[in-house]
Amino acid sequence: MTAPGSDKTERRDMRMVYFTCDYQEGCHPAILEALEKTNFEQTPGYGEDKYCREAADMIRGLCAAPEAAVHFLVGGTQVNLLAVSCALRPHQGAICAAMGHINTHESGAIEATGHKCLALPSPDGKLTGDQVRAYVRAHFADATHEHMVQPGMVYASVATELGANYTRVELEDLWAACRETGIYLYIDGARLACALADAACDWDLPFLCAHTDAFTMGGTKAGLLFGEALVIRNPALQKDFRYFIKQRGGLLAKGRLLGIQYGVMLRDGLYFRLGQHAVAMAEKIRRALAEMNVPLLSENGTNQTFPILPDRVLEAISDRFTLCPWERVDETRQAVRIATSWATREEDVDALIAALKAAVQAEN
Amino acid sequence: MTAPGSDKTERRDMRMVYFTCDYQEGCHPAILEALEKTNFEQTPGYGEDKYCREAADMIRGLCAAPEAAVHFLVGGTQVNLLAVSCALRPHQGAICAAMGHINTHESGAIEATGHKCLALPSPDGKLTGDQVRAYVRAHFADATHEHMVQPGMVYASVATELGANYTRVELEDLWAACRETGIYLYIDGARLACALADAACDWDLPFLCAHTDAFTMGGTKAGLLFGEALVIRNPALQKDFRYFIKQRGGLLAKGRLLGIQYGVMLRDGLYFRLGQHAVAMAEKIRRALAEMNVPLLSENGTNQTFPILPDRVLEAISDRFTLCPWERVDETRQAVRIATSWATREEDVDALIAALKAAVQAEN
Amino acid sequence: MTAPGSDKTERRDMRMVYFTCDYQEGCHPAILEALEKTNFEQTPGYGEDKYCREAADMIRGLCAAPEAAVHFLVGGTQVNLLAVSCALRPHQGAICAAMGHINTHESGAIEATGHKCLALPSPDGKLTGDQVRAYVRAHFADATHEHMVQPGMVYASVATELGANYTRVELEDLWAACRETGIYLYIDGARLACALADAACDWDLPFLCAHTDAFTMGGTKAGLLFGEALVIRNPALQKDFRYFIKQRGGLLAKGRLLGIQYGVMLRDGLYFRLGQHAVAMAEKIRRALAEMNVPLLSENGTNQTFPILPDRVLEAISDRFTLCPWERVDETRQAVRIATSWATREEDVDALIAALKAAVQAEN
Amino acid sequence: MTAPGSDKTERRDMRMVYFTCDYQEGCHPAILEALEKTNFEQTPGYGEDKYCREAADMIRGLCAAPEAAVHFLVGGTQVNLLAVSCALRPHQGAICAAMGHINTHESGAIEATGHKCLALPSPDGKLTGDQVRAYVRAHFADATHEHMVQPGMVYASVATELGANYTRVELEDLWAACRETGIYLYIDGARLACALADAACDWDLPFLCAHTDAFTMGGTKAGLLFGEALVIRNPALQKDFRYFIKQRGGLLAKGRLLGIQYGVMLRDGLYFRLGQHAVAMAEKIRRALAEMNVPLLSENGTNQTFPILPDRVLEAISDRFTLCPWERVDETRQAVRIATSWATREEDVDALIAALKAAVQAEN
Repeated sequence: MTAPGSDKTERRDMRMVYFTCDYQEGCHPAILEALEKTNFEQTPGYGEDKYCREAADMIRGLCAAPEAAVHFLVGGTQVNLLAVSCALRPHQGAICAAMGHINTHESGAIEATGHKCLALPSPDGKLTGDQVRAYVRAHFADATHEHMVQPGMVYASVATELGANYTRVELEDLWAACRETGIYLYIDGARLACALADAACDWDLPFLCAHTDAFTMGGTKAGLLFGEALVIRNPALQKDFRYFIKQRGGLLAKGRLLGIQYGVMLRDGLYFRLGQHAVAMAEKIRRALAEMNVPLLSENGTNQTFPILPDRVLEAISDRFTLCPWERVDETRQAVRIATSWATREEDVDALIAALKAAVQAEN
Repeated sequence: MTAPGSDKTERRDMRMVYFTCDYQEGCHPAILEALEKTNFEQTPGYGEDKYCREAADMIRGLCAAPEAAVHFLVGGTQVNLLAVSCALRPHQGAICAAMGHINTHESGAIEATGHKCLALPSPDGKLTGDQVRAYVRAHFADATHEHMVQPGMVYASVATELGANYTRVELEDLWAACRETGIYLYIDGARLACALADAACDWDLPFLCAHTDAFTMGGTKAGLLFGEALVIRNPALQKDFRYFIKQRGGLLAKGRLLGIQYGVMLRDGLYFRLGQHAVAMAEKIRRALAEMNVPLLSENGTNQTFPILPDRVLEAISDRFTLCPWERVDETRQAVRIATSWATREEDVDALIAALKAAVQAEN
Repeated sequence: MTAPGSDKTERRDMRMVYFTCDYQEGCHPAILEALEKTNFEQTPGYGEDKYCREAADMIRGLCAAPEAAVHFLVGGTQVNLLAVSCALRPHQGAICAAMGHINTHESGAIEATGHKCLALPSPDGKLTGDQVRAYVRAHFADATHEHMVQPGMVYASVATELGANYTRVELEDLWAACRETGIYLYIDGARLACALADAACDWDLPFLCAHTDAFTMGGTKAGLLFGEALVIRNPALQKDFRYFIKQRGGLLAKGRLLGIQYGVMLRDGLYFRLGQHAVAMAEKIRRALAEMNVPLLSENGTNQTFPILPDRVLEAISDRFTLCPWERVDETRQAVRIATSWATREEDVDALIAALKAAVQAEN
Repeated sequence: MTAPGSDKTERRDMRMVYFTCDYQEGCHPAILEALEKTNFEQTPGYGEDKYCREAADMIRGLCAAPEAAVHFLVGGTQVNLLAVSCALRPHQGAICAAMGHINTHESGAIEATGHKCLALPSPDGKLTGDQVRAYVRAHFADATHEHMVQPGMVYASVATELGANYTRVELEDLWAACRETGIYLYIDGARLACALADAACDWDLPFLCAHTDAFTMGGTKAGLLFGEALVIRNPALQKDFRYFIKQRGGLLAKGRLLGIQYGVMLRDGLYFRLGQHAVAMAEKIRRALAEMNVPLLSENGTNQTFPILPDRVLEAISDRFTLCPWERVDETRQAVRIATSWATREEDVDALIAALKAAVQAEN
């Protein structure tokens, strides 16, 4: 494999580069190679093949969790609704940040399984142990608690929807709060590769795994064609899980496609290197924005950057670069999201920075 | 593209050939080529890209249904639960054959969306118009019908779980029955390519489309890595469908993967040729079985064959060929399924026939 | 209390007497007296009052089950859907007889909670232990069981929809089968008072309770205005049950209405005496039918009788008596249901018998 | 009927009077009389009797809505979950105030039917037309709206959970907003009788009915044993509604109990007079509180009063009066709810006022 960003081919229309999200390209070329190489092998369906077994073993190894169950799912909403609906009894809900993906951008997938999202305020999408403790204790302290949705789990995103990452101490505390209150902790790691690549990240996979009941290692945003690996450490949540997957339409017939992809990504650390590339590109953008004195909506060290820019600056670069509108800040400025990924080319980043600089300068 | 079965590489372990199902290999090589070629293009996510648009247009063209909505989903259970739960109001159920996939092999996916499968007896998995008329009329004639699940649609499989295909007259009658009784008709075309390749098939895609409210053109069993194209002809079922897909976890982030695959398959008729190959391989097996006087559990002209074979014959070929156990017929014989597919090699078919002949002869 | 049927007032239109079902009158007068007496007491809502506590204690006493949880619900479908949806995990279904009330006459209430009814054939509505063993074992023996609905419980009706009652040995075996296969047994006792009054009944409440995970003592058909008492013996099903009740809209604000009614019925055995009255009236009818050589669709010793009668006989008595149409037997005869209840007057029974005799005689 | 509060019997323990809620007594005596009088009549089950028909006709008359469908349900959560789940398609949610009953005190009943509560901020529990317009328009303006729950209806409480009432202009505007945005308006009238009795109320039943798609006339809190009358004016929501009721376990077997009760209440305006009594008692309390300079958490003219009182005052009266804790305001004071009802006796109100005066005086 050549490093991301180094390929020479003119691979897309040079008039427009998209930084809108981290799933706009296909996959790392090594994955297509592996799919081609294995294409005519006959394997059992529905993930009961050797590639899935091998990839699951790699993940158990990387997590130092030999007893964990590992399932490979196609998409993020799918894995979230499965994890939540499997963990909760009918009268329970999932505590989440108000901006949590399950609460905002999954079309009510959790509610469609019968469960309420119990949304707590959070400026950057992170939850604290004390928020959880306070919420659960207030619930049971209320004389009418049987008339309210019982909190049964915490859903947390790593990194969050605003790119924020948890520290080791924060994760420990969140986990401790869940243990104390007797509820599950599930972590949506759609952007886990970038969280791990965060320079400030002071925890690793075994630590994360040991401090959750279940979590995902996102693939779709990390260079796979598609795929989310669900790691279930708590034995209470492991039982009969494949029935659930099938029932929700998530059991891929040619399940090996997931095993093969994760195998390629994890065998020699490609998954982590691609996360590092995405974050390096974001850091380069953030350094440039700092030099330009462009404020950020929210600080983070992962692959999403949320600068607050004048409309006229955005207008000036809009024939060449597409960013993701996020929220209006005032009459002349808005926050936008710049998402980098495993596929972001450094020359595109450089061009974006140059264009922004020119536009900002023209504005001043 | 070279014809299926003609590739020269020793692609799998020669000690075992599987005829157990039609999704044991990856995909037609042309699909991997297309994925590679488009890999670094940036496209919008969630199926809003040009490849999906183009593939949907091709399907509308093939179906002579310019107003139809076309959605691309990953899997069969997913598309079935979406189609059924979107079409039904909460108090309604789906009439299906007792062996219908939604009633037997989807882990209660339909019930998980709140709806009952209203199973009717059928020896080969087909439903008749008169069965539908009788069921719906009996429902409304019952004074207590408000205490029963109201039939709201018919789910039919083409081809059925036993490989049976509908005739033009049968489809017309089923559709007429649904119109008369005011319920929807949805056809699960997971094996549609093989139904179309049935020598006895006297209808085509435009006919099918014109005689259903919605149907699927299955991809997973037809040579794609994965994919089911849902064609919704009835405008009443089209509204807001993408919300439903997202809510059920079925909106693929890199949706273009589906558009690209269908594009490759439909552009020059590859989809249909691969179905013809699968059926040709099955016909060759059926001719050989007839010569051996091996009885079939159920007759059909599609890609699944259900011979009733002595246990000792199955034992004799078991070191070289794996067939799919289906049901025990008597103490010494069982019915098995032999599934051929787009990927079945003719030399494997010949070898299977030779092995069966030798074993049957030894038995007599 | 005066015996049912002995009241002197002309309480209804003498031109028509209904034997169509067992919930056509209000309630035993003692209940209205108790409601009046307690009417202006202030009690806490939602069943947390002393009347509910006392009635629950009586039930625990009658069942010799001091650890059982007892909840009072308003209706039968409500209690069934609660018991089933609370006991099952999302991927599980409830084994029941094909004619089981949950499978036929609850408008898909079970499916609306996400669960499939796994219907087994039964001529009289009873299930056997061996049916359960065979079904559960076949499920797990199937290599594709993760693609099928996992049996998680048995739903049985005592008496059944056709009035059949279980013997002690049958109940023991059904319970043993559930223990062996690791699934729950729930008994719908909507007509439990009549089952207990069956002359052939060789078990009692403590026995029933000891051989189920949960069961109901029906009130609506036993002389209450409304009410089903759910007795949950298995601690695993007791936890958080009031949340479930509230969530499904079953927590009666003035819950004491249920406690007061059950208190009246159970304090001195009225519940059981009323069941005996209903069955005595049915036995009188059955003896007369036997004398007339009228065949029955199905034999039983409870409060429902299913004679097969010529249409002309039914026509002849139809200006005076309304029976419940059940099923057509041949061109000239149909089975009807004659339901007696706590409120059936003996003079009405005598009049019905006389009318039937005259009509049958005229027919011969 | 003697006026509420005037009965002479010592009907309860004089050591404690409860003002905690409005459903602590049984029912108005006229209802028990009617139940007794009709007790032995035989009627068809499930609400298909003449009493339900007559009561429904009365309601249609009172609402000047001859085409409205009227259904009688047992409880408030039941009717809310039915109205919401019947009106919404699977991907839609119900806009409500954050304090709305469905969002806070129904144990997730709405989510259990698959739908999200879309909670908007509101200090007194009322929603404005502009809130609705803004929410719906923002939804469809968002490019990713298919990833979010689509607003499909508004749920509003009259009076609200804090006792607030809508004005004619506010109701018109809310209704106009719903028409403009194409969503339904459903009004939970659990406390409708008290809203109508509000001295400031400038609308009546026909007005309310004409400005909603459906609404309820609450009975449980208005002097019935139980019961909520659901009035469905919009024909689109009327179809097949009895199936829904049955499916959710809400079809009362002896449905006439509801028809009889509503008949008694509506025949000569008792329903409205009881609401006036409840409000008159609350007004008396509010005048007294004003004289004592006790601040209120929220102003209203219905039957609930929310004074902010020092803990020591509450402590001082606690041996004689139980109020409902609502929320802590500061270290020494809390807001409590004083609920009056159809059954509140004026001497109890006078005693409460006297006790409060003494305690407040002692405090100053």
